[in-house]
Amino acid sequence: MALYAPGEPWPADHADADVVVVGFDNAAATGARFTDLPNLRLVQTLNAGYEQWLPHLPAGVVLSNGRGAHGGSTAEWAMAALLSIYRKLPVFRDLQADGVWGFQETETLIGKRVVVLGAGDLAVNLAARLAPFEAQVTLVGRTARPGVAALADVADLLPDADAVVAMLPAAKETHHLIDAAFLSRLRDGAVVVNAGRGSAVDSDALLAELTSGRLRAALDVTEPEPLPPGHPLWSAPNLLITPHVAGSTEGAWGRAWRVAQEQIAVYAAGGRPPNAVAGPD
Amino acid sequence: MALYAPGEPWPADHADADVVVVGFDNAAATGARFTDLPNLRLVQTLNAGYEQWLPHLPAGVVLSNGRGAHGGSTAEWAMAALLSIYRKLPVFRDLQADGVWGFQETETLIGKRVVVLGAGDLAVNLAARLAPFEAQVTLVGRTARPGVAALADVADLLPDADAVVAMLPAAKETHHLIDAAFLSRLRDGAVVVNAGRGSAVDSDALLAELTSGRLRAALDVTEPEPLPPGHPLWSAPNLLITPHVAGSTEGAWGRAWRVAQEQIAVYAAGGRPPNAVAGPD
Repeated sequence: MALYAPGEPWPADHADADVVVVGFDNAAATGARFTDLPNLRLVQTLNAGYEQWLPHLPAGVVLSNGRGAHGGSTAEWAMAALLSIYRKLPVFRDLQADGVWGFQETETLIGKRVVVLGAGDLAVNLAARLAPFEAQVTLVGRTARPGVAALADVADLLPDADAVVAMLPAAKETHHLIDAAFLSRLRDGAVVVNAGRGSAVDSDALLAELTSGRLRAALDVTEPEPLPPGHPLWSAPNLLITPHVAGSTEGAWGRAWRVAQEQIAVYAAGGRPPNAVAGPD
Repeated sequence: MALYAPGEPWPADHADADVVVVGFDNAAATGARFTDLPNLRLVQTLNAGYEQWLPHLPAGVVLSNGRGAHGGSTAEWAMAALLSIYRKLPVFRDLQADGVWGFQETETLIGKRVVVLGAGDLAVNLAARLAPFEAQVTLVGRTARPGVAALADVADLLPDADAVVAMLPAAKETHHLIDAAFLSRLRDGAVVVNAGRGSAVDSDALLAELTSGRLRAALDVTEPEPLPPGHPLWSAPNLLITPHVAGSTEGAWGRAWRVAQEQIAVYAAGGRPPNAVAGPD
């Protein structure tokens, strides 16, 4: 094994490498050099998102992702966001800053109906965490199956939802899925959470619903991302913004490397990595 | 059934009442009139805490509490507090206010060792919520039993704890249990959470550990309570204060009345309410 610098030539003594492990960034620069490795058979990402590597994947090379490494901490972030909103932690922090003991009742996750857009690793991790909180969870996947509703039917779920949590990969069918029409079907006070990719939410449409005071939201991913200085979302009411940190917790790289090693071990034994997302079967 | 005003004479047509349902407050004024009800056999509280009613309980009368109604929302508050701290939500809120996309890694509950002081309804609810977060939970009760460590041995658990959550009733043996010696056994950066009664924590000792920056804390209950204006805890660093709201969520009274009705039904059928905490067997 040898370390490489993104975009630089591969280490000279590894010109015969058959596996490259990549992160989230520098896909264009690193991907442009894949063709310099004639023996390359597997590109293994440390992240769940992999779409940026697809255009650079040479024919005959398998792409495998880091699914299973970051689902727990991303789901944890979504729980933190929902609980902070329902339990009014920002309100109490302001009272604390003023030195005021201002008792007031709060909402609770108990009995809340939560629609999770996604049915993969992140969504399953979130459903597991929501279960003991006595919330009612509905997962939504590309196709309907036991325990999972179809994305095509999501409009029917929205009027009864208290919260919608998006945990979707970037893809054509998820681009601006959460637009003005989608948001208009949600009840007053509903909470929109995005822990997937920023492109799933039409920022202008969400901004309008936040500014009117009708909806609430928490975004760990945005469009554009990073959110530039002065963007109107920064000052929107009823909104929590975090800078794409949901999966980036202490120990995350250790968990990602363990997943990557498991994938590479399967490849080395002649199999197809369980996390393969593109390339030959 | 008739409504009464705390401290006022009982409704005239209910002088033969055998059950009184009480809340958290006005124990002295209401309790002083228990002896005006010659047929009184059951005092049923809507709260989990009941110690304030004990001095007023006439001989031969059973006291039963609201255990089971508030454990879920109180445990939920403790989860909200832990997640807000570990996931740095106040830090990101300040960055958001400044319009700054300031990526930084956070801590996570994954792998954290959480010691829960208590082994009753609240503690069991918290353990259930912590389980899918991949935290390691140890419950501590008055006596050791399978799955529960003894309070007498708690000092041995503290050096390895990442967080200590107090969910203790007010009692002689829990008064200032969390004092300077207790806190000194915790590792740097450990989190102290109090969701039980304020008297369990020596406020001066905690203040010293917060001010030095060594420990972090979240308090829903305080000593004194309510925390008066100007109290130094209001401006202590690394502290979240909420005004005794952990059990007070939407629907809490409905849940409490259901528990109370279950207790009264058992009494009416000639049995001893499952939540009986004092009085004849």
